[in-house]
Formats: sequence, C-alpha cells, structure tokens
Amino acid sequence: MRILSTIPRTDGFYMPAEFSVHYGCIMIWPERHDSWQNGAYAARRAFVKIASAISRSEKLIMLVSSAQYETARAMLPPEVRVVECSSDDAWARDTAPTFVKNMDGEVRGIDWGFNAWGGLYDGLYFPWDRDNHIARKVCDLMDVDCYDCRDFILEGGSIHSDGEGTIMATESCLLSEGRNPNLTKAQIEEKLCLCLGAEKVIWLPRGIYGDETNEHVDNICAFTAPGEVVLAWTDDENDPQYSLSKACLDLLERESDAKGRKIKVRLLHIPKKPVCMTEEECEGLDLMDGEPTRTPGERLAASYVNFYIANGAVLVPQFGDEMDKPALETLGECFPEREIVPIPARDIIIGGGNIHCITQQIPMWR
Amino acid sequence: MRILSTIPRTDGFYMPAEFSVHYGCIMIWPERHDSWQNGAYAARRAFVKIASAISRSEKLIMLVSSAQYETARAMLPPEVRVVECSSDDAWARDTAPTFVKNMDGEVRGIDWGFNAWGGLYDGLYFPWDRDNHIARKVCDLMDVDCYDCRDFILEGGSIHSDGEGTIMATESCLLSEGRNPNLTKAQIEEKLCLCLGAEKVIWLPRGIYGDETNEHVDNICAFTAPGEVVLAWTDDENDPQYSLSKACLDLLERESDAKGRKIKVRLLHIPKKPVCMTEEECEGLDLMDGEPTRTPGERLAASYVNFYIANGAVLVPQFGDEMDKPALETLGECFPEREIVPIPARDIIIGGGNIHCITQQIPMWR
Repeated sequence: MRILSTIPRTDGFYMPAEFSVHYGCIMIWPERHDSWQNGAYAARRAFVKIASAISRSEKLIMLVSSAQYETARAMLPPEVRVVECSSDDAWARDTAPTFVKNMDGEVRGIDWGFNAWGGLYDGLYFPWDRDNHIARKVCDLMDVDCYDCRDFILEGGSIHSDGEGTIMATESCLLSEGRNPNLTKAQIEEKLCLCLGAEKVIWLPRGIYGDETNEHVDNICAFTAPGEVVLAWTDDENDPQYSLSKACLDLLERESDAKGRKIKVRLLHIPKKPVCMTEEECEGLDLMDGEPTRTPGERLAASYVNFYIANGAVLVPQFGDEMDKPALETLGECFPEREIVPIPARDIIIGGGNIHCITQQIPMWR
Repeated sequence: MRILSTIPRTDGFYMPAEFSVHYGCIMIWPERHDSWQNGAYAARRAFVKIASAISRSEKLIMLVSSAQYETARAMLPPEVRVVECSSDDAWARDTAPTFVKNMDGEVRGIDWGFNAWGGLYDGLYFPWDRDNHIARKVCDLMDVDCYDCRDFILEGGSIHSDGEGTIMATESCLLSEGRNPNLTKAQIEEKLCLCLGAEKVIWLPRGIYGDETNEHVDNICAFTAPGEVVLAWTDDENDPQYSLSKACLDLLERESDAKGRKIKVRLLHIPKKPVCMTEEECEGLDLMDGEPTRTPGERLAASYVNFYIANGAVLVPQFGDEMDKPALETLGECFPEREIVPIPARDIIIGGGNIHCITQQIPMWR
C-alpha cells in the first residue's frame, strides 16, 4: 500500500455513488458495553442479520477484535470474511476508508482524520486512536493505495456522492466546532471536491433531531439516483424534526446538482411514534467515565434514510412503527431492481446510528 | 471462508513444493521481549530486510499486532501488505496455514493444532492461543477455505513436500511426546499423506543439535527439486551434530521418493565455529516465568538449510562464518535461476529459528 499525498481529483479519482456496483462492504463487530446494551449480544445478532443479507449480493468483510474473533466467526455465515482489526467502536461508515475510483477502474482509499465526532470539543468517546487507524489498515487489507487526508476531520457518514460530481453534506456537521474549525465553509467545500473528485457540494442546513454526530447527512437525506434523493420528513409541525427537514427541503427545491439538474425529492416519513430509550435499555448500558451514555425517555435519531444499498438489495431500518411499511414502499419505487430487505433496527439505533452507519461500500474494481 | 472437515487428498488437494510458483508469503512481526533481544529492535530490522527481499518477487503479507502496526507500516516498504493479526510470537512457518492446491489451481489452507512445540510437555511458551488462531485468520484474510485439522498437532516447519507425493519429516519431532502421543508412527504417516495429498513420508531420524522445536526438518534438510535435497552437515566427528546428520544421510542414501527416485543429497556444512549466545545478548532477553530463555555460551541451532525459496530469490542465513560463502555457492547450484540473497541471521536465530521458520509461502492460484 502506498500512502499518497497527491489529490484524488487531480489523479482522476472520484467517489462513486453507493448505488454503483460494489466489490463489497466493510462492517465492524459491535463490542463496546457503553454503546451496545446488555454486552452487545443483541447488537451482534442484528449485525449478523445485516452482514448475511449484504453477503448475498456482494463480499462482506467483518472486522473484529482479537477477543471476539471466534464468536464472530462462529456466528457469521462462511461467505462473510472475518478479519482481525482493532477498533474503538463499530461505525465502519465513519472509520473505514472512503473509496474512490478512476476511469480505469482502479480503486483507492481515503484516510480522513477521525476524532470520534468532535474530538475534545463534543466527541462521543475517548480515546479514538484505534478507530483512527482503521482506514489505512483496511486499504492494506484490500491491497489498495491510500490517500493521507488525516489533516482533515471527516466521517464517511457526513457525505454522500451521486458519483457524477455532486457531494451532499450538512452544515451542522461539517461546520461544527469539533471538526475543522480553522477552515472556512469555502475551504471545506474545496477540500471535499478535491478529495472526492467532485464539482459541487449541496449544503443541507441540518440533519435529524437528536443525532449525536452533529447531524450526519446519511441520516436525513440520500441519493437514490443522480438528481434524486429521499429526505427524512414529518408533517407534524410540532415535532422538533419538522423545522430541520423543512429547511432541507427548501434548500433542495432551489438547488441543482453539478450537472445542472433540479433535485427530485421523495419524502420518507420518520416514525410516527418517537423511538425512545426505555429504562431497561438504559440499565443495560455500561457507564462511560462514570456517566450514563443514554437516559430513559431519550429520543433516538430514528430515520428510514439510514439504509444501505447493496448490489442486489436495499437494507432498510424498521422500528415497529406504522411508517415502517411506507418507507419500504417508497424505497421499493426508488430501487425497483433490488430486493427491499426490512431490518429490525432497535438494537442498532441504541448504539447511536443505523444500517448505513455500520457499513461502508467498496466499489468494484477492474 | 468455509471450515472443511473433509480430507484434502480425497478432495484432490496436495501441498506444492516451496520451489513451485508462489502468490506470496506470510510473515509475522517480532515482538516478544523474551524471544527477541533488546526489545526486538534488531529483529525488526532483520525481518524488514527479509520481507523487502521477498517482496521483490512475490506478495509479502506482514501480520502485526495492533500495538506495533504503525511501526511496522512505517518500517516496511509500500509493496508489503501490513495486516493486523494477534500472535504469541513470530513463527509464521509454524502458525500460519499450510496451503494446499488442486489441479484446477484452487488453494485452501490447513489449520493444524498448534501447542507451542510441545504443549505442557515441552512447549516453549504458554499460552499459545493467539498463535493457534492465526491459521484460520489467514485463510479468511486470503479468502480461501480452511481445513480443520486442529485435532492433529503439527507445525509447518516440521514438514517438507516435494509437490510430487513425498513428504519429509523428522521422527524426533513428529513422534515426540508433546505432539500427538496417542498416535502411532503409521497413523501419523497416514494423517500426513491424507492432509498433504502425498503417498510417502521420508522419516529422517533427527534434526539439528540443540534445535528446541524437537528438531524440525526445515533446519536439517530441504528439497531443492523433486528427488534432490540439501542436508546440514559437518565433517567433524566430534561435533554433536555429526551423528545426527550422519543418521539422516544414511537414511537418505537408502531411501527413494514417492516416484521411486533415489534421493540426490547435497551437503550444506554448518558453521565451522558454533554460533553461541553472548552474555550481552542474554542480558537483552526478558525473563519468561522468572527464568532466562537463553544462557551465555548456549549453542544455537545454526544451519544454512533454513533458507526461504521465493519466486525470484533464495534467502540464505549467514552467520559471519567461513562456511557462509560455500553455502551460498551450493544453493546457487541448486537454484541457478534465482538470485541468492545472503541475510545476516544472528538477530533471527537468537529467537530460536531462522528465515524459513519466519516465512510461509502461499501457492499461486488460478
């Protein structure tokens, strides 16, 4: 693996859309007892379900600590590759590399700086050094070269690419004090375009209410095709999500993408009944630095937008809510060629993210 | 990765000779402070030299602990793949899988039981659980299926294959009390033939004097071509090695291989001056369970037979002895198409093995 300090866009590399064909997908086995309730047993089962569903249409590589290797190997189907890799938690979207590709089909990884979603300012755990090493380890594992972008703090979940020159991100996250406070919005935009081989950034103002990542874009809005997105939505003007989604919709309605297309927006209604932590669930979480990581009644950032697009399937979080089925139907319209796979997501969202957050696609290479 | 409980020979798989074409080679980064003197710094440099030489003609994968990942990545050239994998020590020959191949060019790994060269009977360290997991981790890493042979204790360094039906091993090791004491020699022979796709085992009686692996074959004798071996030798009848090598030579002279060929034996003289531990070297080794692992004056099992055959090179241990050069010359005759690369080996042999012991080849697949 070469560590590259050149610029991906100058080298002819760009970030393909998630709906482009994949070689496979990276996941990380859940273990933290302050993230995953009751010793992560339920989370593991949910991860196994997701990994199994993904591995039916693309290669799935599960990174796992030495301590959990045997358990993971035994629980996962043989077609999943289980590979040892230390981590601080299981958010492959944010800690595995962002993969870029050139017109010859060569794939490279980007190693962004990672500081646990805000570092010492408002990060979610400390330390995060093992997470920060994952990207280059995965590049070596995949035998691809690695762009060193560690001087720039970014998580994979905070960006989406349409593969045709447009990046989508939220201002609330990328302009937050805990990321790159010394860079202006224009500088961040330029950095994204250079690193991701893009021409334009669509800046959504906000994300999902209560999203502790400073509102990653991948929980509020996602490309389903070039020029088309789904947006997390509620019609309830009294819901704290309303103004956030409305601000995004207003922006999207007046925006166009890098190709000059107007954006077609489909709405994915958030669960009717807020998804909140129970007392029992909170009791199943270890303390962190002496403090609880969740409190009873806390509203979780539940959104159907946090799906994963595999080669042959779209894995969609389900919350046991009346909006579960409409979300599947809308995504079925967006992806008529793929199987729509509902995934009960409560055991994942307790950890603080969802299906998209725990997966990272690897584009197909030549 | 599928875990297979079928029989490699029945499945059409056999162990190719080391001189067949490789995909690459596995090594493990040295770290134990009771194995490698002065914190393993000199050993690391020696491993880097070996990995670099091998990676010039085949893929080299270096397994490394989480703790040493950064150091290994920085010290190794970019063409070496550095992959995280826990281990108890650095003997890839003995802990990485033995790879077998079929006529279609498919490659699989064998996961033997590993008990640190003798388990609780006369093993060299405890515990060895991380070592015992390496083989299947490497299979998953290479994305090949894995034969589960963990009910049989075997190290890769205790066998050689000519790729044409003949396995070579030493009785001193394979029949030792710490390996498979409940199996007869005939049963062990059958197991080897079934697992390695072979027809015949040549049983050398002994190995190198003082070899703490119970005298692995890979330190005393190696195939250089079908029907041809090199044998570690001394003309000095007063040297404790003499009777051991003589017993092997006598055996080889009356043996034939699976194809009925007589064995052509070339002699590789051991160093004229025994390679012994200095006081300073001993002081650089941490204690193990309160005891020194080496004592001043201790003779090390120095042999030129412990070379590694890469696609384009043969890496040969050198001891600063007058026999260094003759060894290079003899191996140059054996491998006229390959570069003969001398490797100063003192910093490796202190650990208890040599170049062959710290490498494991992976055959080329289709």
